[in-house]
Amino acid sequence: MSLIDLSKQVALGVDIGGTNTKFGIVNHRGEVLDKGNLKTDAYDKVEDFIDALYEHVYPLMEKHGTEKHFDGIGVGAPNANYYKGTIELAPNLPWKGVIPFAELMTAKFNLPCTITNDANAAALGEMLFGAARGMKDFIMITLGTGVGSGIIANGNLIYGHDGFAGELGHTIVKPGGRKHWSTGSEGSLEAYASATGITITAKKMRAEFPESMLNQYPEDEINSKTVYECAMKEDPIAIEVFRYTGQKLGEALANFVMFSSPQAILLFGGVIKAGDFILKPTKLHMERNLLPIFRNKVQLVFSELDEADAAILGASALVWEK
Amino acid sequence: MSLIDLSKQVALGVDIGGTNTKFGIVNHRGEVLDKGNLKTDAYDKVEDFIDALYEHVYPLMEKHGTEKHFDGIGVGAPNANYYKGTIELAPNLPWKGVIPFAELMTAKFNLPCTITNDANAAALGEMLFGAARGMKDFIMITLGTGVGSGIIANGNLIYGHDGFAGELGHTIVKPGGRKHWSTGSEGSLEAYASATGITITAKKMRAEFPESMLNQYPEDEINSKTVYECAMKEDPIAIEVFRYTGQKLGEALANFVMFSSPQAILLFGGVIKAGDFILKPTKLHMERNLLPIFRNKVQLVFSELDEADAAILGASALVWEK
Repeated sequence: MSLIDLSKQVALGVDIGGTNTKFGIVNHRGEVLDKGNLKTDAYDKVEDFIDALYEHVYPLMEKHGTEKHFDGIGVGAPNANYYKGTIELAPNLPWKGVIPFAELMTAKFNLPCTITNDANAAALGEMLFGAARGMKDFIMITLGTGVGSGIIANGNLIYGHDGFAGELGHTIVKPGGRKHWSTGSEGSLEAYASATGITITAKKMRAEFPESMLNQYPEDEINSKTVYECAMKEDPIAIEVFRYTGQKLGEALANFVMFSSPQAILLFGGVIKAGDFILKPTKLHMERNLLPIFRNKVQLVFSELDEADAAILGASALVWEK
Repeated sequence: MSLIDLSKQVALGVDIGGTNTKFGIVNHRGEVLDKGNLKTDAYDKVEDFIDALYEHVYPLMEKHGTEKHFDGIGVGAPNANYYKGTIELAPNLPWKGVIPFAELMTAKFNLPCTITNDANAAALGEMLFGAARGMKDFIMITLGTGVGSGIIANGNLIYGHDGFAGELGHTIVKPGGRKHWSTGSEGSLEAYASATGITITAKKMRAEFPESMLNQYPEDEINSKTVYECAMKEDPIAIEVFRYTGQKLGEALANFVMFSSPQAILLFGGVIKAGDFILKPTKLHMERNLLPIFRNKVQLVFSELDEADAAILGASALVWEK
């Protein structure tokens, strides 16, 4: 029996989104050696999806070594349950019900498979390879179409008793506030701080202020990108859209800090392209809602990871974190 | 060198409150073998307090064995920092500034000393000896003059990067809401769900409703106890005071559940004497603010520990938890 050369060991990282699935072969240094993607929504049956994934991945696996070089597969997916290896009732995926995803993957690939939700995977990626290297307590917030989160406390992901911890996007920041388009809850963080929430805020505000530059766009072109364009041209209403969003986000972050007292909060996802338009009000409203013992201690930073690779790195990190 | 007989090993648990300090000698089974107390606020200097504590404790230590039977000292105190062993800027204690409390204790008693905030100690006590035996994920909420909390995730207390995690009483449940009498924050959980908050709510409501039984008491007798008396006599305004309090508490608990997905939330402290008047609305508003994946899964229970012993048990648990 020969010793294993760690530098040659790799993992397969898979990030499953509602539309696209990305995958990559990653080594211990967090280098993505090879990558590819396929359409998630082209497969009505999960078994067909896994077969197609195998067809895509197998040539890369052959290129980078035999099975014995692969430590395992890590998967980030919406509504993934770490303890059970299942994907449960995911509204944005084509496969309904409770799917024993890890088991199906292992049967096909003959490799151990660990899954967790996409934001948890991103948090692990940041801890091993990104801006949170060396940190034992931080919170990752992903601001995309929705708002996701991963919480690291004392060096470990918080999974909760049932594997579903860290749904910070669904915490209520304004009781009785804006109704969420899919959950029906009132005043959740996601209803304000996601790209979808920003679009809603922008449409409301441009209706109130006819002089806003935002009114130069047709209704279906109002989104966080066009709001950013107007903000860059100093449209005060567009700037106010981000300020309001940052206020709601900052108020929520203050509550999160008083829960787990993290060293840093990492922000990630499309919404952070708005830069200081959103970061400054977020920081202001976080600080003003904190108890004095927490003030000016929490770093509020944007993710360092390349967005295209982050999800794959995060998923692969699951393999080595176990 | 002889083997140590675990059944004979004991710990000293100390619970420091603003007015009184309780202490006890506790064995591995969570039995309080002996206990006592002294006035915290009778000692302007922390060194004098520790000398007095030693005078009180020493006779009990002699009775229950020599130093070699004592595994250590555990202390629960407001604003105690687990990592540094300090008590920092505690507004309700007579000793100002940053006090190296654990170090001073060790110098006097010649025993290792671990300290944490009182609600964290209570959470440990529940995990080792109380209603949370065998649980790895739960949240302890203490509803007394203030609102404290201790969070257990994956079997460990969450301390945060700086030792101050778990200040859930200061999370904001109603942005722009009731101003807190000492922190100045607006709409914190403590401003509504503490005994102090209930008194404020009761005074407001009785002024609005002259027919309420609450108006039969002089102003300085309005508190959670008299509100309870009126509620028991079916005064609808007194019942509404608890319903409103439970709503705010339930909304806050829903957010906590979506953070760490605990198996249970344990409630402890004077306020829980209101029983179902507060428990039912709390449960209702917690459930209605939860995402469906979390609903009807979290046990909401009152602490099982005897209130007089709980603080001592919790503090002593620190010694064995290390």
